[in-house]
Amino acid sequence: MPRMALGLAYDGSAWQGWQTQPNGRTVQDTLEAALRRFAAAPAVPTICAGRTDTGVHALAQVVHIDTAALRRTESWVRGLNALLPDTVAVQWAQPVSDEFHARFSAMSRTYVYAVRNSRVRTPLLDRRVGWVYHPLELAPMRMAAAMLVGEHDFSCFRSSQCQAASPVRTVQTLDIRQHGEYFIFTFTANAFLHHMVRNLMGALLYIGQGRQEPGWIEALLAQRDRRLAAPTFAPDGLYLADVEYPAEFGLPRLDAGLACMTHLGWSFVQEA
Amino acid sequence: MPRMALGLAYDGSAWQGWQTQPNGRTVQDTLEAALRRFAAAPAVPTICAGRTDTGVHALAQVVHIDTAALRRTESWVRGLNALLPDTVAVQWAQPVSDEFHARFSAMSRTYVYAVRNSRVRTPLLDRRVGWVYHPLELAPMRMAAAMLVGEHDFSCFRSSQCQAASPVRTVQTLDIRQHGEYFIFTFTANAFLHHMVRNLMGALLYIGQGRQEPGWIEALLAQRDRRLAAPTFAPDGLYLADVEYPAEFGLPRLDAGLACMTHLGWSFVQEA
Repeated sequence: MPRMALGLAYDGSAWQGWQTQPNGRTVQDTLEAALRRFAAAPAVPTICAGRTDTGVHALAQVVHIDTAALRRTESWVRGLNALLPDTVAVQWAQPVSDEFHARFSAMSRTYVYAVRNSRVRTPLLDRRVGWVYHPLELAPMRMAAAMLVGEHDFSCFRSSQCQAASPVRTVQTLDIRQHGEYFIFTFTANAFLHHMVRNLMGALLYIGQGRQEPGWIEALLAQRDRRLAAPTFAPDGLYLADVEYPAEFGLPRLDAGLACMTHLGWSFVQEA
Repeated sequence: MPRMALGLAYDGSAWQGWQTQPNGRTVQDTLEAALRRFAAAPAVPTICAGRTDTGVHALAQVVHIDTAALRRTESWVRGLNALLPDTVAVQWAQPVSDEFHARFSAMSRTYVYAVRNSRVRTPLLDRRVGWVYHPLELAPMRMAAAMLVGEHDFSCFRSSQCQAASPVRTVQTLDIRQHGEYFIFTFTANAFLHHMVRNLMGALLYIGQGRQEPGWIEALLAQRDRRLAAPTFAPDGLYLADVEYPAEFGLPRLDAGLACMTHLGWSFVQEA
């Protein structure tokens, strides 16, 4: 059957994560229900690039399906969006070769954490940005981030439920920028362990609040013990912002991880 | 009793508008319930600067109360926020003189409409931006906006339920800017009639889509007949963004209407 790739955006606060659950309150269950109706097929299994946790948003999730349904590309976008709730929308659709696999073809994933450092809550950004009350310092967080870049054993930042065969991952970039009260953290890696971004974030925020020195990161990496690290940070403000595939597949792609945030109107994250 | 002013932000999509209702699902009911607990008083009536409709957000609503409760200013903010749901938060609190009145002392109100002009929905901005599918042209909307500035009889932009004694209002500025797919409309007036911003927006969007010429605005103003104008636009993306008071009251104030939008991380609206 022909293979189709879909780009997806969703409000993670409305869902119990990507992956199918018996109660059906997940993005995968919702998307597959819409696909069954649109393609008039009894089952349309989906494979995604990054299985986001409960509460984690997506600006650029990529999914593939195999389908005999022949429709114009534009019809896939409009037709599925008419069947999906307000909290999920297809951004683009494109036929791909059988060699494309949303998960295994991905060369890297980019997650963005948006955090507001302020004394008061922000109702209009509730769950869309993380909130940190205590003052954050940029410089120590950047020092710590530099120690995380590269190939490391990330056992200390991996959840106890992580099923990956190896705890080794390669963090390609870990960029932190401050824009007034907002801190934007951009993580790019070949792949991430379960809860890895949220656990890295917990540690970086400890360092930003002065509860630990930047060098603590090196000790954690060496000790490989999750119990020694900081608590997992809330999923509020965490976005799957970009997935990179080999150019030969020719998928539509927003310029880069940061540019994806313009989905939110947050063009400031593109500043140099 | 001493008078206190409060700055308030809320997610309008969670509430049936500002004004108290028998079912209690309004911002005023929720705030007054929190005030009764915080001030340990049987009733704490509130007066606001702008009675926002169902679905309309506030970045800078201003409210005054009379209270015998003596607390540090910081305690008002933190204490009330601990009692308020995630969708409402006090941004600042300040004692004011008895001459201050949140509604009658206001010299102007600024509302901002954020609209995304795109072929696909944006789940992460659902109800936070208005959505227009058909392509919008900036230039004709700006020509139309220029005709609305000044003192006019706005009968054609007033809801049938409007209780104002006079349909005459003075629009001080009506600024429209485009940032890629986003259009930001900023309306400043001494005061607004019921549904006036949403009705103006309906007409501007008709003109932006080429369904009417800019000169239609002058005809509507002259005809003074609501039935001839465009439908009321959705409240999605409409924000009470600023209220201006005489400087003598010394209220905290975000720089200006547009600057308030940085609450959303939307610093782009500050561009020249």
